[in-house]
Amino acid sequence: IAQELWEEVPAQLDEMHVQDIATVLDDQDNDTAVRILKLLAEERQLEVFSYLKEENQYAVLDAMDNAISRKLLQSLSSDDLTRLLEALKPEQSEPLLKLLTSKEVKAALKILGYPEQSAGRLMNTEFVTIRPDWTVREVLQHVRSQDSSEETINTLYITDEQGHLLGTAGIKRMVLSDPDTPVETMISSPLVSVQASDDREEAVHQIQHYDINALPVLSKQGILLGVVTVDDVMDVIEEEATEDFHKMGGTSTLNLSLRDARPSLLYRKRVGWLVLLVFMNIFGGAGIAYFEETIEAVIALVFFLPLIVDSGGNAGSQSATLMVRALATGDVRSKDWLRLWGKELGVAIALGITMGLAVWGLGIWRGGPEVGLVVAMAMVCVVTFGSMVGMVLPFVLARMKFDPATASAPLITSIADICGILIYFSIATAVLTI
Amino acid sequence: IAQELWEEVPAQLDEMHVQDIATVLDDQDNDTAVRILKLLAEERQLEVFSYLKEENQYAVLDAMDNAISRKLLQSLSSDDLTRLLEALKPEQSEPLLKLLTSKEVKAALKILGYPEQSAGRLMNTEFVTIRPDWTVREVLQHVRSQDSSEETINTLYITDEQGHLLGTAGIKRMVLSDPDTPVETMISSPLVSVQASDDREEAVHQIQHYDINALPVLSKQGILLGVVTVDDVMDVIEEEATEDFHKMGGTSTLNLSLRDARPSLLYRKRVGWLVLLVFMNIFGGAGIAYFEETIEAVIALVFFLPLIVDSGGNAGSQSATLMVRALATGDVRSKDWLRLWGKELGVAIALGITMGLAVWGLGIWRGGPEVGLVVAMAMVCVVTFGSMVGMVLPFVLARMKFDPATASAPLITSIADICGILIYFSIATAVLTI
Repeated sequence: IAQELWEEVPAQLDEMHVQDIATVLDDQDNDTAVRILKLLAEERQLEVFSYLKEENQYAVLDAMDNAISRKLLQSLSSDDLTRLLEALKPEQSEPLLKLLTSKEVKAALKILGYPEQSAGRLMNTEFVTIRPDWTVREVLQHVRSQDSSEETINTLYITDEQGHLLGTAGIKRMVLSDPDTPVETMISSPLVSVQASDDREEAVHQIQHYDINALPVLSKQGILLGVVTVDDVMDVIEEEATEDFHKMGGTSTLNLSLRDARPSLLYRKRVGWLVLLVFMNIFGGAGIAYFEETIEAVIALVFFLPLIVDSGGNAGSQSATLMVRALATGDVRSKDWLRLWGKELGVAIALGITMGLAVWGLGIWRGGPEVGLVVAMAMVCVVTFGSMVGMVLPFVLARMKFDPATASAPLITSIADICGILIYFSIATAVLTI
Repeated sequence: IAQELWEEVPAQLDEMHVQDIATVLDDQDNDTAVRILKLLAEERQLEVFSYLKEENQYAVLDAMDNAISRKLLQSLSSDDLTRLLEALKPEQSEPLLKLLTSKEVKAALKILGYPEQSAGRLMNTEFVTIRPDWTVREVLQHVRSQDSSEETINTLYITDEQGHLLGTAGIKRMVLSDPDTPVETMISSPLVSVQASDDREEAVHQIQHYDINALPVLSKQGILLGVVTVDDVMDVIEEEATEDFHKMGGTSTLNLSLRDARPSLLYRKRVGWLVLLVFMNIFGGAGIAYFEETIEAVIALVFFLPLIVDSGGNAGSQSATLMVRALATGDVRSKDWLRLWGKELGVAIALGITMGLAVWGLGIWRGGPEVGLVVAMAMVCVVTFGSMVGMVLPFVLARMKFDPATASAPLITSIADICGILIYFSIATAVLTI
């Protein structure tokens, strides 16, 4: 930003959403970002700060003096604070932890103690609890008296004195009710909740299935620890879909923006599968070498190699993609495999016959009726086989507790290619030597 | 369900969530579903009904008498009603429309008038409006006096008398404020909204970016038409990801559950791309035919064909997947292409060299130093080229207003394969005849 433009900045900032200011600051160098941040009123400063990327949050904290840094840190909701600490190296996070009270540090460390993909990691610990023997009037007074920074009061949590969750009650119904109604009569049941150690996908599933905005997270003893809200879940849905996409494409999961990722990281994430698949494809080469005599005898067969072999891989990619996604969204369970297998077999054979007919004429034209027969038969077998591999592999992986998305398009294609070569030349050798 | 078990059903139903009851009913035949539904108290009956799949909703309406059907229909929120009408054939929806008042029919038809993927289709029209000159006390009275079936009162919409949206105010802040505060002072600004004709992805983006639970949908004149809520958006995120998955896997979009889809539908959704790609691969075959002499001279070259050609396809699948997903989530914009192109070129060359070195030794061992050189050089070129195709094609498609996900793994693989064959044998012919 040029010097003369600086004067206009405050007026522009006033008209912007805090989220948009954060997006702009994320693109600036650290000094400019801090300078702009300082132009904001304190309340908006805290809000903008909470929307910055973690690395820029750290840069800001580093540049500000301790008093402001403390305020910024304390303004973060517990899940945002955890995310920041997670992203930092130990030598970066230590001075920050010193700014917080021991109670705040304890809360953050407790959340970091849950496994990385667990519901506990996703929750935030700001929530309002009420007692069953209160009236609606008492509840509303209590809510008013709470620090207004509480992230959500849409749902109030009814607990006993030990903190065991008894039920929930919506603030909506409170507002709509007679002030003398006792809370007991307003408990929504049955209760939906997850345990802190449950997988975060379980939390996503519950929120989607029960159409709720906030899901309580409990300890094994039933004590309320925190709340997972629908906006956290929205991010998880997108992240998990991205993860599956990357896996299906044959790259390791990239937890970073593609825009910001360094070339060296991209290289490392991709090279593993590529090299592994090259060595797998040696078997394809070996298959060709084994059938060298057949190939030399009827060189026209090589013409059809890419057609037939790729079709198997393509059909396999299709099945694998359909299955992996259906397993990920819960549309299909791993116990459904037998039912789907029958259906897939039917579809695959129909596809194979269609494709076989499509290349039959081509085979006759290039190499005569015998080659036509070989090509058509090979196509049916290869497409059916490829589809089966694409369908079965995700299920096998799911059964073995691996992520079904490991059955990536490149992996399926390579397996289908190798087997396609063997099937094609086996049929050719059998038919052409009769 | 056996006859003697029917007696236990009511007790079991009492302990179940309405969503879970709906899931169970969706799996029953129509008679059983209707019979179970009739066991429920009316309020729960309506709730369960709203969570049924559309085709089962229709079956229930068909089996019930008109008075009950009318109640069930009227209990649906406007977006659920629209979804039901959308799923039905005209001859099915007509008798249903007769059950509704002309005002209700008009509202439903209005929503159906918006384009299929628009924000207008996603919105529901139940919302609470308030005037800027009211006090908090008046607002809370107004909210209490409204029919409690209103889907959301978390956010209140401040409009003028013509219905122009002036701003929003959270019920939270109302509850937390002094009852004499005027509404005017509580308007959150600046306002976030979309137009009814905007793409639904725009609504998703706004809700995600601004972390809000409900987004107002306006007419061109700024009149409030409806509200898109975060749970609708969550479903859209998952649907759009599934759509992209299917496209990337080379199938047409399947708007149905894979579990329920008929084999004939699956066949139709898959056969198009498969046949198209076969005919594309004829070019690969033609490439091989063109280089027949080279192949016959050094038959060892065929050994490396699957290795080299597949590696290009795999590298291309990787790039395409990364780009398509980054474009879909908004991580990358189509204007970023130049910056990403430079980065991708660097990564691709590095990957190509790694892979080239990996097969160089193999080439020397199978066919001597000259074949080793050919194989290594071809690998570098093919991997680099494949990555470039995988990277550029999604951007080109996005520029041409196509969905980038059309650059499916099978398409990229086939393009990379054809070009891989040409590159490989061209290099072989050049090097081996020197």
